[in-house]
Amino acid sequence: MAKRYAYLGPEGTFTEAALRALRPDAPEEARVPCEGVAAVFDTVRSGGVDGGVVPLENSVEGSVTATIAQLVNGDPLVITGETSVPVEFALFARPGTTLADVKRVATHPHALAQCRRWLSGHLPDADTHTVSSTAAAARAVAEPGAPYDAAICAVIAGERYGLQALATEIGDRADAATRFIYITRPGELPEPTGSDLTSLVAFIAQDRPGALGDVLDQFTVRGVNLTRLESRPTGDALGDYCFCIDAEGHVSDSRVGEALMGLRRVCRDVRFLGSYPRSARPTELEPRLRPRPTTEADFAEAERWLARLRSGQVD
Amino acid sequence: MAKRYAYLGPEGTFTEAALRALRPDAPEEARVPCEGVAAVFDTVRSGGVDGGVVPLENSVEGSVTATIAQLVNGDPLVITGETSVPVEFALFARPGTTLADVKRVATHPHALAQCRRWLSGHLPDADTHTVSSTAAAARAVAEPGAPYDAAICAVIAGERYGLQALATEIGDRADAATRFIYITRPGELPEPTGSDLTSLVAFIAQDRPGALGDVLDQFTVRGVNLTRLESRPTGDALGDYCFCIDAEGHVSDSRVGEALMGLRRVCRDVRFLGSYPRSARPTELEPRLRPRPTTEADFAEAERWLARLRSGQVD
Amino acid sequence: MAKRYAYLGPEGTFTEAALRALRPDAPEEARVPCEGVAAVFDTVRSGGVDGGVVPLENSVEGSVTATIAQLVNGDPLVITGETSVPVEFALFARPGTTLADVKRVATHPHALAQCRRWLSGHLPDADTHTVSSTAAAARAVAEPGAPYDAAICAVIAGERYGLQALATEIGDRADAATRFIYITRPGELPEPTGSDLTSLVAFIAQDRPGALGDVLDQFTVRGVNLTRLESRPTGDALGDYCFCIDAEGHVSDSRVGEALMGLRRVCRDVRFLGSYPRSARPTELEPRLRPRPTTEADFAEAERWLARLRSGQVD
Amino acid sequence: MAKRYAYLGPEGTFTEAALRALRPDAPEEARVPCEGVAAVFDTVRSGGVDGGVVPLENSVEGSVTATIAQLVNGDPLVITGETSVPVEFALFARPGTTLADVKRVATHPHALAQCRRWLSGHLPDADTHTVSSTAAAARAVAEPGAPYDAAICAVIAGERYGLQALATEIGDRADAATRFIYITRPGELPEPTGSDLTSLVAFIAQDRPGALGDVLDQFTVRGVNLTRLESRPTGDALGDYCFCIDAEGHVSDSRVGEALMGLRRVCRDVRFLGSYPRSARPTELEPRLRPRPTTEADFAEAERWLARLRSGQVD
Repeated sequence: MAKRYAYLGPEGTFTEAALRALRPDAPEEARVPCEGVAAVFDTVRSGGVDGGVVPLENSVEGSVTATIAQLVNGDPLVITGETSVPVEFALFARPGTTLADVKRVATHPHALAQCRRWLSGHLPDADTHTVSSTAAAARAVAEPGAPYDAAICAVIAGERYGLQALATEIGDRADAATRFIYITRPGELPEPTGSDLTSLVAFIAQDRPGALGDVLDQFTVRGVNLTRLESRPTGDALGDYCFCIDAEGHVSDSRVGEALMGLRRVCRDVRFLGSYPRSARPTELEPRLRPRPTTEADFAEAERWLARLRSGQVD
Repeated sequence: MAKRYAYLGPEGTFTEAALRALRPDAPEEARVPCEGVAAVFDTVRSGGVDGGVVPLENSVEGSVTATIAQLVNGDPLVITGETSVPVEFALFARPGTTLADVKRVATHPHALAQCRRWLSGHLPDADTHTVSSTAAAARAVAEPGAPYDAAICAVIAGERYGLQALATEIGDRADAATRFIYITRPGELPEPTGSDLTSLVAFIAQDRPGALGDVLDQFTVRGVNLTRLESRPTGDALGDYCFCIDAEGHVSDSRVGEALMGLRRVCRDVRFLGSYPRSARPTELEPRLRPRPTTEADFAEAERWLARLRSGQVD
Repeated sequence: MAKRYAYLGPEGTFTEAALRALRPDAPEEARVPCEGVAAVFDTVRSGGVDGGVVPLENSVEGSVTATIAQLVNGDPLVITGETSVPVEFALFARPGTTLADVKRVATHPHALAQCRRWLSGHLPDADTHTVSSTAAAARAVAEPGAPYDAAICAVIAGERYGLQALATEIGDRADAATRFIYITRPGELPEPTGSDLTSLVAFIAQDRPGALGDVLDQFTVRGVNLTRLESRPTGDALGDYCFCIDAEGHVSDSRVGEALMGLRRVCRDVRFLGSYPRSARPTELEPRLRPRPTTEADFAEAERWLARLRSGQVD
Repeated sequence: MAKRYAYLGPEGTFTEAALRALRPDAPEEARVPCEGVAAVFDTVRSGGVDGGVVPLENSVEGSVTATIAQLVNGDPLVITGETSVPVEFALFARPGTTLADVKRVATHPHALAQCRRWLSGHLPDADTHTVSSTAAAARAVAEPGAPYDAAICAVIAGERYGLQALATEIGDRADAATRFIYITRPGELPEPTGSDLTSLVAFIAQDRPGALGDVLDQFTVRGVNLTRLESRPTGDALGDYCFCIDAEGHVSDSRVGEALMGLRRVCRDVRFLGSYPRSARPTELEPRLRPRPTTEADFAEAERWLARLRSGQVD
């Protein structure tokens, strides 16, 4: 049966753009829009689809909190891929509309905030209206008898709903991007590629000075770099905290495996969220700037040395 | 002139409820709703109001990212208060409507996700529509000729728009809460109360194993506990990260002041976001569970001891 | 061929007492006194004996430095045992001598310092003379025409040279003890006993703040306690330091093995000095006072968990 | 009254050489030899002299342990100076003696160990005898009817006792050195020179993984480098340890003062042993190799910044 994928809808969201980037060969009918992040997770859990895509960081659709809540507290799913999508806003209208015709603009509140400068320069007199997503704004503009003249949305949304671009790249910040993850039911792990990330949640039992430092030391002593760290109260009990962590490397790497075992021993609980290929980023262009004191070869050499010591050989 | 306060609107949001809790004596006309988090910050910066309230953590309105972006990158404002508001959803309709009449429900996507269980049990056949905030849903229901029969929103919103509650406490999770902060232009600091928080952003220059540990050690060695920690790429340069930190204590406390000076020396930059009274929380009921190895008295005693040593006296 | 053992002589030293405790069944002719710590090491290295005993800590014979220099810089030998000997001084004289006859007392300078209070109370008018060891003092007193009337020495020395005790337990400090180690050529390791020590030398390349902390973290994160730590300049190059470390546990223990591999990766060099049964000490009476966060069972459980993760299973 | 200085005797020890280096203008009668390290300390404590010199590290006379015991447990004295003396051994005999005449050689056991190679090459048939110090060996050779033909000792000792050098620089290791300290009763501290050391003893109450790390972090976070570290059981109670530490900098430096206050707060006890000018060492030739992240200027700047924050100013 053909594979199907859930994503945070409606059609035309930046999340759909992320799904296209992650599964470029999937036909349109394989993409299943869901209303809300939780619905994406539930659809994947139920087996209705093979995987799903949700925003994790910096989303203009603001869903980070919902995604993290699902990863931390929901029934376990694992991350097997990620991608980053540039957040490029455009102004779309029905064909035939000119900029001078635009009196009422619809969009999501965050998009509105990020396009304020352009609007004050080009449409200082237009009314603005906020709706639940930039894609919903485009959809509303496309409807017959629409109460709005134009939508601020992604290019994908404008095209999806048959609109025409009046202006592109109208966001105040040129380099904005959102990071999306691909989630599936637990199963075989992606192969290590040499440039991977491992995501996990570490639950600590005591909220005391140094507790987080003890967790981080498990990574530092093995030379594992962290790329994301966020604390969250677990809500389970008095003073309980958890830390959402993205670390460089794959669970099959020695340094990551040993760090995970260390966390397992010192934490109240550890939830493994997956190892997956890292998407291309500017930082990847200069990997040599980072110290890598503990490569796979370093671990293998140390293991051979220990075996010699244990057999009574001394260098 | 009477004081005025901006908040994330429209009228009836949980943020308005937070503002009422923080400024209980302010009359209704002193509360100025703004569209979007950025607008609240800008209104405070411009001097149009005396202060503003925005969500910081776990908001159902999903504005955390926008708030943090303003705190980290925007022109400096300081936090001088905080409060937590329980997130309690209710179903509101125009007077005279019964539950059986409800065919179309409007709300924000996150609220929809959090009330799914109640809806499937009580309104399995109703259509759901998402709008830009729960308060906007209530407002839309209240309008003449409204396309929706009921709104899922805060009690404050239902009352604000003259609606009637058909059901209350319909959220799937009883203990959800959102944390809000009160922001002002820099000026006199709030007095220390004995239970305060200090917020700051630490910028580190190198993304290497141990860099965050070095930052945390500045707190640990002075016995300062952290209550929130979140990493963010700064976007400024290759591999630059910053950490948003909430620490227990007031900048006028010795242990916090010394930790801040330590960060100032070892970080690329430190942005102080304010010291303010901590809002009451369950954890405050058991403060003795937390080790407090370095009280103000401990710091004072150590300082006297050092002065003796420097003058040549040895115990 | 019968086994033979070198020790720091001459006959009658506390070191000989330690050898008797470590090898109680060895006949007198199996014990080979050597002049100086270096001579003991060299005799073991050359194969002239099966093992040797030297003082390591707190010796009244003051040989700690020499022992450590041999362990750090000499051709490799390994420690396979240890024992502690109480330092109990006695006043010995030729048979027939009474306390009133004693005008001239010989001993080692450290022993003299440690018996000063007794001497000023009981022999205020006696001359004191220092020689190279307490055993040498006893031997000198025993010689015909000896220039001394009595020796301050160990009981073993007084008996060895046919002297008679005039007073015992004359040291100012009742609980003084010296720790001795048993050294052999590298070969099979002693079996783990559940109460073992592992000795090693860690060489770090850079003398910078935090360098030693990085070394110690390798033990801390695995829950390995240290019982001795001493820094030494290596003399090899500018700013090079090494650390002589005794850690609880056996090299065959997971937590010790993993810590050693970690050191191997981050240090310029690591010299393994042996794993051996810990001698009984008062602290052993209360082992439950010590946290043992990472037992062998904890390591095994964490390893099984990691294997499950790597095979795609998620708890 | 003219100043007088105690030192570890007898006349002609390396310690006397150190005293001459530290007090070059003191006449011979100002130097008071004492028998044993404890006697030097006691003479200083009693006020019989103005100060004293004892070996601290790597002494061929092996007195390190005794010195440290006095510093840690004895009535408080402070260190106000240090110097290092190269350990250069020579063979001295009575005038008229030739190398061929030497049948019996006296020296201290450690000196014997360090000259073994030379002896086996040049005096393979000579008997060796050990006495309590190299200076005592020289003195014995000089006595009428001496039982020894030559002494291995310092040049200062040979000259002191009217002997003649038969060979110089006969030690196996050319770069051996001993570090000596100058101790006085507590009083005014030496002025900071820009290149100082601070000595102290930190007593920790619990022997657990990480306890020493917590102590070291107090230095690391303030950028204070350590040049010596040694653990010692205190003997006071079960599992109690102390750490003898030499740190770079003067107690009047901000970074050292703040680290000391930190130790005061987290340790069971801290004993300050003094701040004093560092003696010239090869490592001083390349001070720029060491990171100095926290200079006095850095501390001053951070303090001004904190004062601004506390007054309500935000950069």
